[in-house]
Amino acid sequence: MAAMRIVQKYGGTSVGSTELIRGVAGRVRKLYEEGHELVVVVSAMSGVTNRLLAQAAEISAQPAARELDSLLATGEQASAALLAMALAELEVPAISLLGHQLKISTDASYGRARIKSIDVSRIEEAFTQRQVVVAAGFQGVDAGQNITTLGRGGSDTTAVALAAALKADSCEILTDVRGVFTTDPRVCDDAVKLDRISYGEMLELASLGAKVLQIRSVEFASRYGVKVHVRSSFDEAEGTWVIAEEEDMEEILVSGVAFERDEAKVTVFGVPDTPGLAASTLGPVANAGIVIDVIVQNVSEEGRTDLTFTVPKKDLAATEEIVKGMLDDIGASGFSASPDVGKVSVVGLGMRNHAGVAVRMFEILAGEQINIQMITTSEIKISVVIDASEVDRAVKVLHREFIGGEQDGSIANTGR
Amino acid sequence: MAAMRIVQKYGGTSVGSTELIRGVAGRVRKLYEEGHELVVVVSAMSGVTNRLLAQAAEISAQPAARELDSLLATGEQASAALLAMALAELEVPAISLLGHQLKISTDASYGRARIKSIDVSRIEEAFTQRQVVVAAGFQGVDAGQNITTLGRGGSDTTAVALAAALKADSCEILTDVRGVFTTDPRVCDDAVKLDRISYGEMLELASLGAKVLQIRSVEFASRYGVKVHVRSSFDEAEGTWVIAEEEDMEEILVSGVAFERDEAKVTVFGVPDTPGLAASTLGPVANAGIVIDVIVQNVSEEGRTDLTFTVPKKDLAATEEIVKGMLDDIGASGFSASPDVGKVSVVGLGMRNHAGVAVRMFEILAGEQINIQMITTSEIKISVVIDASEVDRAVKVLHREFIGGEQDGSIANTGR
Repeated sequence: MAAMRIVQKYGGTSVGSTELIRGVAGRVRKLYEEGHELVVVVSAMSGVTNRLLAQAAEISAQPAARELDSLLATGEQASAALLAMALAELEVPAISLLGHQLKISTDASYGRARIKSIDVSRIEEAFTQRQVVVAAGFQGVDAGQNITTLGRGGSDTTAVALAAALKADSCEILTDVRGVFTTDPRVCDDAVKLDRISYGEMLELASLGAKVLQIRSVEFASRYGVKVHVRSSFDEAEGTWVIAEEEDMEEILVSGVAFERDEAKVTVFGVPDTPGLAASTLGPVANAGIVIDVIVQNVSEEGRTDLTFTVPKKDLAATEEIVKGMLDDIGASGFSASPDVGKVSVVGLGMRNHAGVAVRMFEILAGEQINIQMITTSEIKISVVIDASEVDRAVKVLHREFIGGEQDGSIANTGR
Repeated sequence: MAAMRIVQKYGGTSVGSTELIRGVAGRVRKLYEEGHELVVVVSAMSGVTNRLLAQAAEISAQPAARELDSLLATGEQASAALLAMALAELEVPAISLLGHQLKISTDASYGRARIKSIDVSRIEEAFTQRQVVVAAGFQGVDAGQNITTLGRGGSDTTAVALAAALKADSCEILTDVRGVFTTDPRVCDDAVKLDRISYGEMLELASLGAKVLQIRSVEFASRYGVKVHVRSSFDEAEGTWVIAEEEDMEEILVSGVAFERDEAKVTVFGVPDTPGLAASTLGPVANAGIVIDVIVQNVSEEGRTDLTFTVPKKDLAATEEIVKGMLDDIGASGFSASPDVGKVSVVGLGMRNHAGVAVRMFEILAGEQINIQMITTSEIKISVVIDASEVDRAVKVLHREFIGGEQDGSIANTGR
């Protein structure tokens, strides 16, 4: 194999102990000895970030954001240093580099900073000296040299951004699952590992994929055309390639069935249908930091309309408080809330040219006596909101009908 | 009180839990509200550095030095962030700054780096905005932006160096003891806290003082004339001022009795007395990283001499190996080793003008039937090597005779 430029990222469970770190070092050594140029991005050892968050919570209910980032960044700093030590122990020359040393420049949005630029000169210098670079994931610095972090799962974005900046041949995300599955193998025995998936589908599979790959890293990969290989850190098997759309991909109608169990639904009744209605109703909810997912507004009758939206179940109480307080202001007649809904989505590039997918999906669910409460669609995704207790059954039947049930079932079972 | 510029340093036991950190924040707030400009230097929470060292040891018996420094620096980074959070929680504007943000430039000697310069512009900017600066102790960066550490107790040096660079009015070292004592209160009930001590005496009291103040920080303070106030973080009592020599200090003959229990003694017999003898004998020991303390060479007889030196007891086996291997090379007739010796020193500026101190010390020990095995002296210190089992008794009797036994004994008892 010709020498390549490879970025690898190991998640927290893959570097969760000094023994596992030694194992990762062994795996990196093999690649090094094949002559590749390597950047290894590491997350904090599993459990460390939560321990640091708990310490911060003992100090303050709302810790100062700048200081929280500086605190959390220590997790990746430690695992990067330990992996570099482990490589040195195997006589692989290695150097750990942190956000400020890598010059990963971000904006100043602590806790969810966005990467603006990376200066790869220090990495290129390390490659010239045949050193492996161990990069601390998740962290950067803003223009004032303050430490910033990229949000949960941010090490994926570090890896993809480094791969883009270095024009790497591949970006491997090594994790505790074997790749991206057509649905969650814990819910559906038929789930199979995908060999490849387009960036667009991966983004739409968010609710499933977020457990494997930070969504923002997929956006980054898509923008810069970085080929991302999601695979297990515990064996050498091929995982799933997340890549640009290829021609034959449309032949597959549905590539995955995604779902969310813990949603809640709020309907505001009889709102005067004036411009800015959605903004004035949803704005205060969003400003409270609550993530609104599905939004449906019915056609207005006699100048009044109903607005329904979903929020994470844990945020329902806060949402109800906010909505209750605004009813008079927006002139609504009332509201209702349901704490037990879920969302099921089918995703696939093929949908663009096959108008019948939505209808078939509704028929399948009707055949199972599953009542659809809300519907939203995008170009390559159809989502329905249903009763939370029916989510698993809906996933199984949709997966069987759209993706097929028999082949590779045994593989899927061992996916996690 | 007029507004002052104050550097405070809190040791690991003073920030050993989130509760203690909140307590430190309260103490800092009081000073802040008095209008002072404040830099607070913190060590790692007690136990953290040892935990990180243990992790490194699991990876490698000799961890890569650069990576070890990057790993250890996380300890101070975390406590600095936590203290800044705790201050923010008390509505005291605060910002944590790390070695690279403070631009504490050091040489590249990992694990024992020396500070070369500090750029205080960022601190001055914070003062302009009425912010408290929380500085991570112990760490700096070399010319290549690699993280370096200053050695055990290095946060003391960070504090003194910052105080010098900022021309601070005072540098307070807050710790778990009430100050510098005339000897260890755990050994001698009569030990009393000194109100002040000169830099020179403090340096000579190393073996006692190292537990309170890193020696290098004293050198730094002496060079730049920084007044260091060693005091307890658990109460508001005055501690010990470590300051430049003042005229009246010489009136006190002996300011302290220091001791070391765990030494070992090696004598090499019948070495041909040629130039370079000491270097060729001791060089290989020092090169093995063993700290040689007392060295005595007797007057030569018939061209041959005996060379005796002490090393830490834990290094005796390694030292014996080295000496055994060199006997033929240096033409020595043999060697002996004793694993159970200790050292007792009396220190005081007054000795310079009072020749009788040494004689009186020998008489006191003789009166107690304590046999002196080796003697060394400096301008303001006399040290004797004696049997380890007699160290405590020697300390007590020397303290009583030179410093006095009755006054303030009760205070000394509560010193730790």
